[in-house]
Amino acid sequence: MTVVEYLYKNIRAMKIYQQAITLAAQKRGFHLITSTILQAAPGIQQFRAGLCQVFIQHTSASLTVNENADPTVRKDFETFFNKAVPENDPDYLHDEEGSDDMPAHLKAALLGSSVLIPITNGRLALGIWQGIYLCEHRNHGGQRELVVTCWGE
Amino acid sequence: MTVVEYLYKNIRAMKIYQQAITLAAQKRGFHLITSTILQAAPGIQQFRAGLCQVFIQHTSASLTVNENADPTVRKDFETFFNKAVPENDPDYLHDEEGSDDMPAHLKAALLGSSVLIPITNGRLALGIWQGIYLCEHRNHGGQRELVVTCWGE
Amino acid sequence: MTVVEYLYKNIRAMKIYQQAITLAAQKRGFHLITSTILQAAPGIQQFRAGLCQVFIQHTSASLTVNENADPTVRKDFETFFNKAVPENDPDYLHDEEGSDDMPAHLKAALLGSSVLIPITNGRLALGIWQGIYLCEHRNHGGQRELVVTCWGE
Repeated sequence: MTVVEYLYKNIRAMKIYQQAITLAAQKRGFHLITSTILQAAPGIQQFRAGLCQVFIQHTSASLTVNENADPTVRKDFETFFNKAVPENDPDYLHDEEGSDDMPAHLKAALLGSSVLIPITNGRLALGIWQGIYLCEHRNHGGQRELVVTCWGE
Repeated sequence: MTVVEYLYKNIRAMKIYQQAITLAAQKRGFHLITSTILQAAPGIQQFRAGLCQVFIQHTSASLTVNENADPTVRKDFETFFNKAVPENDPDYLHDEEGSDDMPAHLKAALLGSSVLIPITNGRLALGIWQGIYLCEHRNHGGQRELVVTCWGE
Repeated sequence: MTVVEYLYKNIRAMKIYQQAITLAAQKRGFHLITSTILQAAPGIQQFRAGLCQVFIQHTSASLTVNENADPTVRKDFETFFNKAVPENDPDYLHDEEGSDDMPAHLKAALLGSSVLIPITNGRLALGIWQGIYLCEHRNHGGQRELVVTCWGE
């Protein structure tokens, strides 16, 4: 292992930026939202070194970082998570909001309610193949509320 | 998608606050700890825009954000994770600390060792149905040590 | 629950530090990289209270925090995740980059692309049994690029 680069040897003062975003309703599945976030949160560009958190204020949809190129990856995510977290398990007690509801809560916990991505030189420091996914676990999830917070210098 | 609101258009200087919390022993299962965190960490109220991280210093218990209303959701979490991560798999090599130990490590990795939640106007910016779960994966886990760190402006 | 300690009652000004790290290629499996991170990112020592994020810029390897002592735990992680996320599922559509590729994307989403650890008195505030894992999900993953960002006061 080699240290490639000290991007910011000199430590500097920090600032913060926060905004709410409403995502339009998406069908059940995994959706790339990187460009949506970038357009909605231009404040990212103001940081030379920092972090950007995207948080989803729901318990039946989630956020993750994964492959941004081949749409079949996102279809395979839906296939896998439907097998890993079955609907209609007779052992579920929480079953009055539809067969997709309890699995949606479980999938959301497995994937997580936020992503946290470094900012370098005004851009998200994602790898070349990385994008941000909205993971919609409900059949009719409706709009989804996000909070984007960026901080750094 | 619409930008609903620029909460903090003007970028400001930041501050940080950190404290340790000891949680009393909980039985195996999923427990809502949002109000415990809020009472133990009043510093949250000092931030107009920021973040709050809760970190658990253990590898057989974890933290997640999920549904805060119906207790059956938390029971179904226990049911699901016990099926997804079985005890007594004969392939486990690490089996000398009890049949619940290796599954506890795996569940902790699936759920995560921390939650990161935005702060807006002195309050955690959780969705209306979101709460913080302590996920106790051991039969007799004992006290659990948390570190709460808040930063923002 | 008891508040054990207010580490930093007085809220202070903050600074940030960011650097890239290249990890040498590792074989498929789970690898402890805590000491590697500490050696590569000496800036951690400059923070009295803060956070350290380690982010991986890939979608077929991941990072998590788990048990740092018994190597069989890491072997059991490999065993478990290979069962939980099977190769050669005939339902996968994304199957042209090798049988380990789509499972690698799924495992990476389950485990996460970053870890976020508090810093207290210039050290990572890990529990005594906690370490940082590089989770290499590909058979031949090659070098892996990380971004370490620390902030605090």
